[in-house]
Amino acid sequence: MNRQPTASWPVAKFTVDEGRGSSLFEYEDAIAAETPFTFRVNGREFATIVCTPADLEEMAYGFLASEGVIRAAADVRRLDIDEDRGFIYAELTGELPDSALADTSKRVIGSCCGKSRQFYLASDRATARTSTSRIRLTPPQCLSLMRQLQESSADFQATGGLHNAALCTPDALLAVRSDIGRHNALDKLLGYSLLGKLNTRDLIVAFSGRLSSEVVLKAAKLGVGVLLSKSAPTDLALELGQDLGVTCVGFIRGGSMNVYTHPERIAFHEGGV
Amino acid sequence: MNRQPTASWPVAKFTVDEGRGSSLFEYEDAIAAETPFTFRVNGREFATIVCTPADLEEMAYGFLASEGVIRAAADVRRLDIDEDRGFIYAELTGELPDSALADTSKRVIGSCCGKSRQFYLASDRATARTSTSRIRLTPPQCLSLMRQLQESSADFQATGGLHNAALCTPDALLAVRSDIGRHNALDKLLGYSLLGKLNTRDLIVAFSGRLSSEVVLKAAKLGVGVLLSKSAPTDLALELGQDLGVTCVGFIRGGSMNVYTHPERIAFHEGGV
Repeated sequence: MNRQPTASWPVAKFTVDEGRGSSLFEYEDAIAAETPFTFRVNGREFATIVCTPADLEEMAYGFLASEGVIRAAADVRRLDIDEDRGFIYAELTGELPDSALADTSKRVIGSCCGKSRQFYLASDRATARTSTSRIRLTPPQCLSLMRQLQESSADFQATGGLHNAALCTPDALLAVRSDIGRHNALDKLLGYSLLGKLNTRDLIVAFSGRLSSEVVLKAAKLGVGVLLSKSAPTDLALELGQDLGVTCVGFIRGGSMNVYTHPERIAFHEGGV
Repeated sequence: MNRQPTASWPVAKFTVDEGRGSSLFEYEDAIAAETPFTFRVNGREFATIVCTPADLEEMAYGFLASEGVIRAAADVRRLDIDEDRGFIYAELTGELPDSALADTSKRVIGSCCGKSRQFYLASDRATARTSTSRIRLTPPQCLSLMRQLQESSADFQATGGLHNAALCTPDALLAVRSDIGRHNALDKLLGYSLLGKLNTRDLIVAFSGRLSSEVVLKAAKLGVGVLLSKSAPTDLALELGQDLGVTCVGFIRGGSMNVYTHPERIAFHEGGV
């Protein structure tokens, strides 16, 4: 049986209601689940993907076909899915094609770009640090930074196809970078901070895309303590945020925002509540 | 000098104007550019990424740091970017760390998940076929399929964090699959079509996310001739759509849609123009 594609997480929702002050509402919200699975094909480790844990048999057949490992369902003699441990075992009727192994000896493909818990355990562990940031900011500052981010990108407005990310102080954007790839926009900010030898500990990242596990890892690599997003989070992202000491704020839209992890950096009571 | 982060592409825009019939307007639109770059580090091929061609020096430093290859800008002795041929050459002051090579001997990381032109040339070439679809559908059918897709996903509505993809006839959704990963939702449909031995040639894919190169490749692997999206395309995606015979339709929102490639499958003049 598949696990649920959604999980539950405690949220602190802050809303500014024009003319009536603001409010803080705490509740359990449904969020998207994100789960890593490692494929072993004919006994050999082939790839790790991160996906929503639903329709896993179709996911397995589709991924193997898409990667050139099989051409038809009949090319798989046996498929076993170990949901608890996160493994998918495929036994083919033939050999693993050379063409499917041409590029990489082992692949790690994330939900949106090439990361997973397994990858996290290798080179990510060396570069993603637990945040020691002592920054504190108010909800109106969070709302304002997201507004500034949305107003900053002419190319996004022209094409509708770019992700934007900014390094910020509580009051202003220091640098904004855009890319079609969500992780690339964040890597450009990392390059900016390295080239400028910036101390990022008490800075903030504002991001136009969703909070996936990889985005939280990138924020930790950047060394910031607060990650602001217009969009929804996943459960794996929030688990990483919790572990790495990153304050994750999502659904910053209009006058409202949801704080999911480390709310101690958000000064609710200075925001007019 | 960086290339431009946007490109220009001819668009056929179809709009249904309630009470006033519909219109077709052809023009050149700005779309997001998507370009592959291969990193060679200390003379060794390290990874290929697909990104927006802007801020490439920051992109290079940030990617190397994010992958655990460098810790500071000073770890790079020399960086050369060959924009025309798509190579980034990095010479480090020291060796390439073993930890950065632990998982893969060579990585291919796409703009949103692990694909690139280079990857396309290996296993993708074996699985992505040129479409021979003879399907034909009207603009109101395209608009209706996208509306049905958006109304179909309870989990998306609950979490705001999932991508939806559907295999469709011109009039109805056959199967809808959801995932946090855009490519996973399409792989689940591929698995569905393989397990059910579906003939997909004259089917359509409706997709909630952007039209990146990888999404067009997945549509070609599925074997469909038409790809409908709520969102923006990239130039590399449209070049692939052109090559692989896939009709790419983007920005399907409300009563409007943009046709970018192979418009011969869209029956504009049966749609009320």
